Amino acid sequence: MPVSAKKIRLADDYSEGAHPRILSAIVEANQSQELPYGNDTIAHAARREICRHLGTHDVDIQYVPSGTSANAICIAACLRPHEAVVAAKTAHIVVRETGAIEAKGHKIITVDTSPLTGKLTPELILGALAENWHYPHMAKPRMVYISQATEMGTVYSKSELEALKQCCVDNGLLLFLDGARLPAALASPMCQFTLADILRITDLFWIGGTKNGLLFGEAIVVKDPVLAADFKFFVKQSGCLLAKSWIMSVQFAALFGPGDLSAELARHANSMATLLAEGLAQMMGCSVVEPETNQVFATLPSHTVLLLQRRFDFYIWSKPSNDRWTVRLMTSWATSKANIQSFLAHIQLELQRHGQAGK
Amino acid sequence: MPVSAKKIRLADDYSEGAHPRILSAIVEANQSQELPYGNDTIAHAARREICRHLGTHDVDIQYVPSGTSANAICIAACLRPHEAVVAAKTAHIVVRETGAIEAKGHKIITVDTSPLTGKLTPELILGALAENWHYPHMAKPRMVYISQATEMGTVYSKSELEALKQCCVDNGLLLFLDGARLPAALASPMCQFTLADILRITDLFWIGGTKNGLLFGEAIVVKDPVLAADFKFFVKQSGCLLAKSWIMSVQFAALFGPGDLSAELARHANSMATLLAEGLAQMMGCSVVEPETNQVFATLPSHTVLLLQRRFDFYIWSKPSNDRWTVRLMTSWATSKANIQSFLAHIQLELQRHGQAGK
Amino acid sequence: MPVSAKKIRLADDYSEGAHPRILSAIVEANQSQELPYGNDTIAHAARREICRHLGTHDVDIQYVPSGTSANAICIAACLRPHEAVVAAKTAHIVVRETGAIEAKGHKIITVDTSPLTGKLTPELILGALAENWHYPHMAKPRMVYISQATEMGTVYSKSELEALKQCCVDNGLLLFLDGARLPAALASPMCQFTLADILRITDLFWIGGTKNGLLFGEAIVVKDPVLAADFKFFVKQSGCLLAKSWIMSVQFAALFGPGDLSAELARHANSMATLLAEGLAQMMGCSVVEPETNQVFATLPSHTVLLLQRRFDFYIWSKPSNDRWTVRLMTSWATSKANIQSFLAHIQLELQRHGQAGK
Amino acid sequence: MPVSAKKIRLADDYSEGAHPRILSAIVEANQSQELPYGNDTIAHAARREICRHLGTHDVDIQYVPSGTSANAICIAACLRPHEAVVAAKTAHIVVRETGAIEAKGHKIITVDTSPLTGKLTPELILGALAENWHYPHMAKPRMVYISQATEMGTVYSKSELEALKQCCVDNGLLLFLDGARLPAALASPMCQFTLADILRITDLFWIGGTKNGLLFGEAIVVKDPVLAADFKFFVKQSGCLLAKSWIMSVQFAALFGPGDLSAELARHANSMATLLAEGLAQMMGCSVVEPETNQVFATLPSHTVLLLQRRFDFYIWSKPSNDRWTVRLMTSWATSKANIQSFLAHIQLELQRHGQAGK
Repeated sequence: MPVSAKKIRLADDYSEGAHPRILSAIVEANQSQELPYGNDTIAHAARREICRHLGTHDVDIQYVPSGTSANAICIAACLRPHEAVVAAKTAHIVVRETGAIEAKGHKIITVDTSPLTGKLTPELILGALAENWHYPHMAKPRMVYISQATEMGTVYSKSELEALKQCCVDNGLLLFLDGARLPAALASPMCQFTLADILRITDLFWIGGTKNGLLFGEAIVVKDPVLAADFKFFVKQSGCLLAKSWIMSVQFAALFGPGDLSAELARHANSMATLLAEGLAQMMGCSVVEPETNQVFATLPSHTVLLLQRRFDFYIWSKPSNDRWTVRLMTSWATSKANIQSFLAHIQLELQRHGQAGK
Repeated sequence: MPVSAKKIRLADDYSEGAHPRILSAIVEANQSQELPYGNDTIAHAARREICRHLGTHDVDIQYVPSGTSANAICIAACLRPHEAVVAAKTAHIVVRETGAIEAKGHKIITVDTSPLTGKLTPELILGALAENWHYPHMAKPRMVYISQATEMGTVYSKSELEALKQCCVDNGLLLFLDGARLPAALASPMCQFTLADILRITDLFWIGGTKNGLLFGEAIVVKDPVLAADFKFFVKQSGCLLAKSWIMSVQFAALFGPGDLSAELARHANSMATLLAEGLAQMMGCSVVEPETNQVFATLPSHTVLLLQRRFDFYIWSKPSNDRWTVRLMTSWATSKANIQSFLAHIQLELQRHGQAGK
Repeated sequence: MPVSAKKIRLADDYSEGAHPRILSAIVEANQSQELPYGNDTIAHAARREICRHLGTHDVDIQYVPSGTSANAICIAACLRPHEAVVAAKTAHIVVRETGAIEAKGHKIITVDTSPLTGKLTPELILGALAENWHYPHMAKPRMVYISQATEMGTVYSKSELEALKQCCVDNGLLLFLDGARLPAALASPMCQFTLADILRITDLFWIGGTKNGLLFGEAIVVKDPVLAADFKFFVKQSGCLLAKSWIMSVQFAALFGPGDLSAELARHANSMATLLAEGLAQMMGCSVVEPETNQVFATLPSHTVLLLQRRFDFYIWSKPSNDRWTVRLMTSWATSKANIQSFLAHIQLELQRHGQAGK
Repeated sequence: MPVSAKKIRLADDYSEGAHPRILSAIVEANQSQELPYGNDTIAHAARREICRHLGTHDVDIQYVPSGTSANAICIAACLRPHEAVVAAKTAHIVVRETGAIEAKGHKIITVDTSPLTGKLTPELILGALAENWHYPHMAKPRMVYISQATEMGTVYSKSELEALKQCCVDNGLLLFLDGARLPAALASPMCQFTLADILRITDLFWIGGTKNGLLFGEAIVVKDPVLAADFKFFVKQSGCLLAKSWIMSVQFAALFGPGDLSAELARHANSMATLLAEGLAQMMGCSVVEPETNQVFATLPSHTVLLLQRRFDFYIWSKPSNDRWTVRLMTSWATSKANIQSFLAHIQLELQRHGQAGK
């Protein structure tokens, strides 16, 4: 299928297929007969590979096909009916999951965060607790949801994570981490933490595959043994336990196996974002936020944005004024240097036409 | 991965991977950039192929990763909170989906059916209506759930389906068909109906891929335009809308495209079941139900069953007596004639040892 | 409002208003200002009175307005999303609560019981466990629901209850008792147990008020301190925490206070049922089951039933044949001897007309 | 029960019992036998009285025991699983119902409103629609929730209501009105609308009884005949259909019958709030918002607030500074002039002690 006639997408990190090594792993595993529903030998192999990175073998790993299912299953698995989850107003569970958390019966207590970082802080959590005191008339906050990297592409530092953890421990809250872009966070130049740190600091988290070179699949890491004992029920009840579950675990085995493909792919995506941001930063008329992972937010003349949209796909994030719009540009494991350069060349050309190129 | 040391599985039709042509289609499509969430060109191509078999292009097709998700999403999409679905006591939604229907808030009204056929009839449905009359103290029956082929591997004839439909129309009920093994039913020697008939007779149905040679994926056919307009919300809210949704549609495009791979694979599975049943029928001490699709129910001496289990994986279905047990043997698109013959040879040997071979 | 022109109702035990002493207690309490939402002094007084009967003060009591809310709240409070409750096929939660349990997300595993007694037994529970083994494909049985008295008006003996409890303990199940007619059971001639026994034997239960002379209200007895700590959340979330919650507790204070009105009212209802059954037993052409509480099942000529319906309201329970129908006759705290005698006189007259009176 | 030793409550409008005429109506009705579950003659009488005020008899009236149940049942009755309700961030369903709406599966899209009025506007609704555009990734706004009077005690004018209605019609939204304090709004000096206007302008609404002199009970007015046909199922499934349902309808019959007790009680509550506000407005050091219904918001020296709390119960609403706090004072149908004067005298005394009395 030729792609030449299509627009180049910088809209997201899931418009590409799987990395060739992922695909090879599927093709190879396809030849064997396997026990269904995750009781296969491949699941055990994948668990070993991931556990190597976690620094322990004492956890359960469950695979689900999407980020929304990962979040909804994890949250509902932990909460009793009257318990709520605290999240940033911009959180994926708030604005991009069609009410999946509420559909399982739980309230999300939303918190306004800095629009630039999208990060929760202990102060913000304490504020949410202070506002939600009137029991039993208010749902009881029981869990804090964060994503790493955040929806804004920023990365919680290790000390920020530790502070969130301490706040949760002090207030009887569980800390849950949505890791749809955890590999990007781990590959960030900002990153001072390891996957083992994430395991230690959180109560429950998952590692994204869909946005890091898999066909699909997310790996939920369950360290609480009581939760782990029943976790597969939740996956099955939500319709997310695949008969040929190995199709997900085999991809994770390839991703986290020898060679550390996960880190390689995430580093590539991040580096393409850096390349893009650096190019944009040099252009007159363009202001850009330095990217921490694979998302670039740039503010451009609106007419330039409109012209770029003829050749490239991306989201207009906000419109600070009629004249200048902020766009989100996203890179992936598959983004080529050539496409970044093409994008930069086009924008350069557009800005020049209006006498704004070069600072 | 060598399979020689493993037991040969006749336990289900989803222990095998994907058919090579399915895998090739994935590998080929993997090279392009696609719009996410089902808005891709592949989805349109797959829809065209399926619609060719349906005899209309005026339907919506949505893909979900599993049978449980297909059933739970379809049922909840149609019912209001107080409405119930009527199903056989042996139905998949009753006994194999971890309460997924109830988890979405709906009661299943169960009906005892003939244990041999597992089929609902107009009489059984009317009986359920007669018992569930006490409004508003009882949930209101609004939908009838059937599976084709049934959990027992039997096939509703066209006239049986028409009678169910008439009963539903007469009583304000929707008819929903779980087609996890619909290709097997269409390939059955019993079959006098087409996919277009299924579309006409039911209000909503889905076509199974997982059990007919795909890696995973089921195709829901939505003919009600009002339902279709919002159906994707339900899929997304249930965590079943994949970012790279084309991974499912591309498999269905291959399955229903030129060459009619779906029918070919289902016919193979059925023919292996027939071969197995014919072999068993000739053995003294073994009684067997003539298979309508890819499931064989055979009753054998219990000691023979125990010995067979050393080499083969299958379910013991029931234990009519201490001496004689009924086993379920299931074939798939990938079951080889050699494996069937090996199984028959083993059973022959076991029966001979106990002086029961040959009739 | 004149009642003379109306039919006399023997259809249920909730067609009458409140006992005068209950009404007086409401009228008196109405004069004071009270803290809302159950934090009032009356709730504490009612708790003391009930606890006197329970033999402990170490429980929490919560009031809800109806039996359906009591059952739905109790069951959902105890179960995690994948857990199911085991109940008789004739149980109130199965056939008279509009899917309220399922609406909160939980499957009910139904068990066929003896139609005469409607009682669960350890054997039946073990049978349900044996059928629901296939984890995680089946919802996990975690609770057993019984009602005392049962839907059939029968009473579990103390040893039957102890056996159920042992079965639950042995199998990791909670025992939950629907006490909509618990006062009738306690007042039964069959009764060898006390309210303290019920507390000890069950994990959670409630005491019915609506069917024993209150305007409305049921008292849930929560002995598990962990559950008790959060129970009010569940009541509130279900819309059942009344602002003027004392309207329920004041009725229970009157019911269980000095004089033991609860026992007095239940004994009256039961004795009227006995009177009715004894009268019926003496009539030719009428067969009657000896009542254990306040329900009488009698089998009569169908034409007699039809004629009786002109003057009396009651349910036709089943139609064993065209000629003979079984009716359910229910007495209440307010049923008068005169009405029973009037009913017996009418039936006597009808039977005489057809030459069937007197044995 | 003596009240002298207790604090005088100005905390809410539900700490008092029922008005004597309400209580008398209950006592009188208690003598008759009635059909259960709302099929009684009293329900029909109450419906007639309410319908007289509505200007039509073509609606269904259902009674539920609490405001939370009224809201949760109404909202869930109208929405499909993926549909959301838009509400002010301060709305009762957002902050005082323990996640009851989410427990039934629906997302609430919250909107920041003016903190003084707590009112939604067409602009705010359009803003919410503009933010929730990304289908199917976002829940679909389908209903607007308002309360009249609002949580802040303010009253939407007729033209404000008409503008909201037009906005809803233009955007395919249902308008639902929580009338917990609708009688107070109708009795407001601000009020230019009738109950018939409310019926015309909204799609669904309810009239509060608990906060206007009843023991408990809210009346839901269902004008959509399709919704009305099934509404009782929703009430029953939520455990809110009382066996002796007449206990609610009889109170509404008394409230809306000859003499218009509802208006009388609401006017009294409002006038006591006016009296209180006028008294406060004359005191130096006290700033007060002119009340539109029965809530008074006054800002006082914090030490005065602390001293007042020894004798009176009320909520501290906010703490604009360390020195000056805002309190909410609420009057009810039962608030006596003497208690208002006592409160004013106490505050006068406290302010004088600190040299701040009199302006």
